[in-house]
Amino acid sequence: MTDQLRICFIGDSFVLGLGDPSYQGWVGRVLAAAGPGLTAFNLGVRRNTSADVLARVWAEYDARHVPGADHRLVVSFGSNDTVVEDGAPRVAPARTLEHLTALLTEAARRAVPVLVVGPPPVAFLGTEHLSRLLALADAEAALCADFGVPFVPLTEALAADLAWNAEALAGDGAHPAAGGYARAAEVVLAGGLLSWLTAPQAAPRARQ
Amino acid sequence: MTDQLRICFIGDSFVLGLGDPSYQGWVGRVLAAAGPGLTAFNLGVRRNTSADVLARVWAEYDARHVPGADHRLVVSFGSNDTVVEDGAPRVAPARTLEHLTALLTEAARRAVPVLVVGPPPVAFLGTEHLSRLLALADAEAALCADFGVPFVPLTEALAADLAWNAEALAGDGAHPAAGGYARAAEVVLAGGLLSWLTAPQAAPRARQ
Repeated sequence: MTDQLRICFIGDSFVLGLGDPSYQGWVGRVLAAAGPGLTAFNLGVRRNTSADVLARVWAEYDARHVPGADHRLVVSFGSNDTVVEDGAPRVAPARTLEHLTALLTEAARRAVPVLVVGPPPVAFLGTEHLSRLLALADAEAALCADFGVPFVPLTEALAADLAWNAEALAGDGAHPAAGGYARAAEVVLAGGLLSWLTAPQAAPRARQ
Repeated sequence: MTDQLRICFIGDSFVLGLGDPSYQGWVGRVLAAAGPGLTAFNLGVRRNTSADVLARVWAEYDARHVPGADHRLVVSFGSNDTVVEDGAPRVAPARTLEHLTALLTEAARRAVPVLVVGPPPVAFLGTEHLSRLLALADAEAALCADFGVPFVPLTEALAADLAWNAEALAGDGAHPAAGGYARAAEVVLAGGLLSWLTAPQAAPRARQ
C-alpha cells in the first residue's frame, strides 16, 4: 500500500532540515524509520510563515498529484510567525489560526488527510518567544481537534532538549545539527506520525 | 559565503531520490559532501518530464527566493521524456530541447546560474530506451554549451554501473537503492558539481 502514498511535508526551515549535516532533518529521519518505498516531498522553505505556506500549498501539492494515489499532507508552521520584527509578530496569532483554518478547510473540500506538527522553538530568542510559541501551539492543537486532524506536539519537548538548544546556539541560533533533528524525529515518531503514515486516514471534517 | 547560497534541484524521481532507504538520493549525498550550511530545496517530482518541470520551475523557484541571496538551479530531466507510451515518446527529443532552451533563456533573463545533470538510465527499459536517452543526453550537452551552462554527464556511467542496475531491477525496475544513488553522487561530484556550488558562477548567456 505504501507505494501508493505521496506525502507532502510543508512548512519552514525546520521542516527543510536546515543545519543538519546529512540534510535529512526530522522529515528524512522519519521517512527512513518508515522504511523504503514512500514517495515524499520536502516542501520546507526558510523564513516561511503560515501566510507563505498557505500561498503556495495547493499549487505545489497539485504539481505532485497523480490520479489514484493516496495523497497526504504534513504541515508545520508558527516558529516564524511568532518572531517579532519592527515591534510586532511577523504574523499575529489570530492570523496564524485563520491561515490554518483556510488550509484545513480546503483540505476537507479536497478530501486530503492532514497531520499538523507543532512549531519548534527558536533557541536564541529565549523565553519570551517560547511562551508565545507554546500558546500558539496549544491554539493550533485546539483548532486541529475541531477539524478531527491529528496534532503532534513538538515545541515543549524540544525546548527542554539539550541537543536541540546547544546545537542551535552553537550554529545560527535557531537551527540544530544532527542531534537536535534526531530528537525532533523521535518526538514526532512517538507522537504517532509513523502509524498515521502507514494506516488509511480520513480527511479533515468540514467545519460549519 | 555558502550560507548565502540557495540551491533548487529540480527534475524527476531520480532527483527526488525515490527508492533510497535513507531518502537522501544523489542530491542529499552531494549536499552532505559539500558540508553543512547550504540551503537546498529538492524539487524532484516522480513521473515529471521536461514539460512538467518547465511548467513549475519559476513558480517554485520564486517561492524560495529571498532578495540578496545567491540563487542557483540544478536541473535534470529526460528519463521520462524518452519513455514510450502509446507508441511514441512521452516528449519527443526536439520538444525536450525546446523546453531546456526555454528554461535556460529565462534563467539568462533572470541572471540565475544553472547546471544541468544528464538523465539517469531506466534499467528495466533496456538498450532501446538507453540509446534514445544517450542521444538526448548528448543533445542536452550541446545545447548547454551554446548557453555557456555546465553539463554533467551521468547516463553512460550509470548504465555501466552494477549497483545502479541490480538495485533497480531488484526494486521497481527503475529506481536504485543506496548503492546506486551513492554511485550517482560520486559521478556528479567527479563531474564538478561541488566546485560549481562553492565558487561564484555566471548566469547562462542569452542566445540570439
